[in-house]
Amino acid sequence: MYRAPVEEIVHTLTHVAGLDRLIESGLAGDLSPDLVEAILTEAGRFAAEEIAPLARIGDKEGARLRDGVVTTPPGWPELYRKWREGGWNALSAPERWGGQGLPAMLAIATLEMWNSGAMAFAIGPTLTIGAIEALERHASEELKRVYLEKLVSGEWMATMNLTEPQAGSDLGALKTRAERAPDGTYRLFGQKIFITYGEHDFTENIVHLVLARLPDAPPGTRGISLFLVPKFLVREDGTPGPRNDVFCASIEHKMGIHGSPTCTMIYGDGRFGEAPGAIGWLVGEENRGLACMFTMMNNARLAVGIQGVAVAEAACQKALAYARERRQGRAPGAKGDEMSPIVAHPDIQRTLMTMQAMTQAARAIAYSCAHAIDMARLSGGDEATHWQMRANLLTPLAKAFPTDVGVEVASLGLQVHGGMGYIEETGAAALLRDARIAPIYEGTNGIQAIDLVTRKLPQADGAHVRGFIGELRRDAEAARGANMAGLGATGARLARALDDLEEASEHLLRLLDEGETEAALAGATPYLRLFALAAGAAMLTRGALAAGDGARARLVRYLAENHLPETAALKQAVTEGAQSLLTAAGDLSEHGR
Amino acid sequence: MYRAPVEEIVHTLTHVAGLDRLIESGLAGDLSPDLVEAILTEAGRFAAEEIAPLARIGDKEGARLRDGVVTTPPGWPELYRKWREGGWNALSAPERWGGQGLPAMLAIATLEMWNSGAMAFAIGPTLTIGAIEALERHASEELKRVYLEKLVSGEWMATMNLTEPQAGSDLGALKTRAERAPDGTYRLFGQKIFITYGEHDFTENIVHLVLARLPDAPPGTRGISLFLVPKFLVREDGTPGPRNDVFCASIEHKMGIHGSPTCTMIYGDGRFGEAPGAIGWLVGEENRGLACMFTMMNNARLAVGIQGVAVAEAACQKALAYARERRQGRAPGAKGDEMSPIVAHPDIQRTLMTMQAMTQAARAIAYSCAHAIDMARLSGGDEATHWQMRANLLTPLAKAFPTDVGVEVASLGLQVHGGMGYIEETGAAALLRDARIAPIYEGTNGIQAIDLVTRKLPQADGAHVRGFIGELRRDAEAARGANMAGLGATGARLARALDDLEEASEHLLRLLDEGETEAALAGATPYLRLFALAAGAAMLTRGALAAGDGARARLVRYLAENHLPETAALKQAVTEGAQSLLTAAGDLSEHGR
Repeated sequence: MYRAPVEEIVHTLTHVAGLDRLIESGLAGDLSPDLVEAILTEAGRFAAEEIAPLARIGDKEGARLRDGVVTTPPGWPELYRKWREGGWNALSAPERWGGQGLPAMLAIATLEMWNSGAMAFAIGPTLTIGAIEALERHASEELKRVYLEKLVSGEWMATMNLTEPQAGSDLGALKTRAERAPDGTYRLFGQKIFITYGEHDFTENIVHLVLARLPDAPPGTRGISLFLVPKFLVREDGTPGPRNDVFCASIEHKMGIHGSPTCTMIYGDGRFGEAPGAIGWLVGEENRGLACMFTMMNNARLAVGIQGVAVAEAACQKALAYARERRQGRAPGAKGDEMSPIVAHPDIQRTLMTMQAMTQAARAIAYSCAHAIDMARLSGGDEATHWQMRANLLTPLAKAFPTDVGVEVASLGLQVHGGMGYIEETGAAALLRDARIAPIYEGTNGIQAIDLVTRKLPQADGAHVRGFIGELRRDAEAARGANMAGLGATGARLARALDDLEEASEHLLRLLDEGETEAALAGATPYLRLFALAAGAAMLTRGALAAGDGARARLVRYLAENHLPETAALKQAVTEGAQSLLTAAGDLSEHGR
Repeated sequence: MYRAPVEEIVHTLTHVAGLDRLIESGLAGDLSPDLVEAILTEAGRFAAEEIAPLARIGDKEGARLRDGVVTTPPGWPELYRKWREGGWNALSAPERWGGQGLPAMLAIATLEMWNSGAMAFAIGPTLTIGAIEALERHASEELKRVYLEKLVSGEWMATMNLTEPQAGSDLGALKTRAERAPDGTYRLFGQKIFITYGEHDFTENIVHLVLARLPDAPPGTRGISLFLVPKFLVREDGTPGPRNDVFCASIEHKMGIHGSPTCTMIYGDGRFGEAPGAIGWLVGEENRGLACMFTMMNNARLAVGIQGVAVAEAACQKALAYARERRQGRAPGAKGDEMSPIVAHPDIQRTLMTMQAMTQAARAIAYSCAHAIDMARLSGGDEATHWQMRANLLTPLAKAFPTDVGVEVASLGLQVHGGMGYIEETGAAALLRDARIAPIYEGTNGIQAIDLVTRKLPQADGAHVRGFIGELRRDAEAARGANMAGLGATGARLARALDDLEEASEHLLRLLDEGETEAALAGATPYLRLFALAAGAAMLTRGALAAGDGARARLVRYLAENHLPETAALKQAVTEGAQSLLTAAGDLSEHGR
């Protein structure tokens, strides 16, 4: 059973990602290390004692739809009530609307624990938190007044309606229609798919944020507007009134996160209300909806990244516990006749060390992204600009790498269980099934890699990424300078990995500069992996140096001496692999061989 | 929908794995290239038209148990009947018992296709084929006479009963008891778990091969005997008679291969028969059961490896078809306003090329293993010894690498589908769920890696592996010598990968020689991967050279320039990674940090 790794989380926040400096700078108000630990300890208790025990029933029973009504798994509505009453929904929300205004770093750290408890449960509130941020930034005062307090308290939940059957990654292709009504509201018509918690029994009202197109909108992404469409129209007194013309037509039968209802939502087919059309309110300006949605999406990308960390952490714990208990064969050097616990076999040790190292590297990157988001929001002037670029740079890394790691680590964890891992009752398979969605939604990891290469790498003509690599080099130098035997060759290996990162970065910048976009795109995925491996290892080195010679040093040494050599191969794929790919790719078309 | 890649299979058999030489040598009797193609074409038709259409219902409905009776998915018993009436079960079985006596290479190639159609279906007959081989080699004439004809025709099926709750990988720990009866038969008592097709409705009788321990047996693996225990005792006239004292107590709820009943079998609890005890017949000698079982297990290891190839192939086809159809965004250089098919995006192209290259490398290794098995069986003297060592060497590679590739490629295929991939109706998730068992059963891939390092690598004091690497070097030299522009840097990259393989091999041989077993075991998994990548690439190079400058050359060039650089990192993990692993591993124990 999951135990919240509060010490590990506090260490990563503080000594790796920069919470120490955030607190010292005074930008985080009266937040103190003690308060951080108290909050995280209590969150960890809730995740382990309240959420995790309901994960299995959530997977087994799943969410169900009957006559437009969605029932979440047994015990989940009550769990949600306890969770929001604990104030967890309001953690990072603005104080003006009842939130606690705590840094994103803390919100992300607690979010990791909710997701380790049960990813299918945690994903619902995640969307509400993103919606709060979008409304706070872009909505009218009137809308804020009606909705924000309820959303911050968690009394109502929110959804994010982007995808349509023909428009997944490509939002420019969406067709949902919004018509202006005489009273300044809008009427929405259309179908949205893959809407997470689009319908459920956690709250009495649900606030949908919906991307749609006005009749006179320009084509493509410049003609998209954002609307707020409540399930129940809100009365003057703030209570839910008549049903709006929106409903859930079906829910998906998915590989995992069974407890999370993934809904097809129908807007404006006339099932409810006086005349067809779901009543909506504009958020922000007409045709500027994408900017508003990006606020939510960036938030959601990091939130999805942390799902990867969370599932990986749960898988590490589960596999380690099993490996300590299960006995098979005799390990080298084992004494007596007894079978050894499999944790004593070097091959299993390799698996477990890889799982732990990758999980911690993923966590370091995700928390560092949260730190950049906090700094961008809390600091000012050039500093804010700098940190915004850092957040931009880290967002695709923090979405893609941890979610890939989530799948890899969950799969390795299943493997450690042997045959038992394949049996659903064990729970290891469910972690892999849950983890598998995270590299897909909120922009596939391929799209993250493209975003990294084409938009984030060229920030400030490459100066920002160069500066970041320079910072990481200081970690490598510190490791080489430190008199810490436990680090082994970490400093040297890390320096070489950062050379690879630099070479690959310069190569891609050159290609972009020369208009060789296709060749640059061909290297996007290995580049992202290379970047994350090198940066993650540098961050863990930083943490090991802060912690002194011990287990952290041994772990990062393992990572450096066993996995960092991979950066050379990834660099070669980036710098020398494009031509062979683009040459061979013709064979993939219908007219290929 | 799956289409059998008959051309690809024939090419790999003939020009990569050595079927051409086998036919030329005359060892394969009157087998001709035309006959090979005719057989494979017909098998491909059956797999695509008869098996594949029933895969989805198999996954959805699964096998069910009620009152000890197992019902396979709707249509599956009829499918099995058609399959065996087509003579497919008898393909490689001995002619003496009604088989066609064809080479293992052909059997493995058809097995790939059955598994691509529906892995959960194909796995049942696979076990029968292994049992035929074990009985043919080790059973008494009397047992052969009663059982082999029925098993060869497929009228009855067989199972393989090894695992017990406390004895998975470690067969020495098993407890099932066999007592001698006065009439020369035995009575078995005990529980076996994870018994594939332990009970089903395909055939009227089921022949269990069961490992058990005699009361006076020495401890460990030297005290294990093999017994044949039929579900129904066989009458004098060869028809099934009274029920034997064995039944299926439960079936597992698994992540995938839902159509395959995974049974807990209870022997000798007195439910059937006059007195408690399942009646069994000894196969081979007392306490020598493991040797008999190894015949089945080696066969089963390659058969599981081919499952990886099969699922990977199905995933490649599915992802490519989707990528050609699905339109999102605009690819670099796209003309007009339309969205591009995602196959035009370089990042998707990279994914698809990796999937295809890895699948073909896995197939090349698996077929080469089948070739070695054929040569060991059909040739004689020193040649047979040589090929037996080759089969020994290739078996762990052919089990582990293709099954890892199966999972990786199925996961990449799911990713290509985006959100649709996570929806069960699409079928991409089912491929991943099915594929995920293959790295586990028949000896986890970690155990394969240990087997490779500790038993196969040291064959003939390393001379055999050195000879094999020498053969692979000839492929690299041929690539360098060939005037084939399409190969790009393939020859050079391959030569470097083989250097890595050689260095890693010599390093491990040295460690074993010095008694540093733990350090050698620490590198087992990266060594296996390195070996398979280098060998697989060499084999594909061979195939590309045979085919001439074209798509095959482009594919192996992609592999060489994008993935072969990984061998350097794997070599470092083998040669320089052990110390950091063994140092850090102490932290994994209960007393660790």
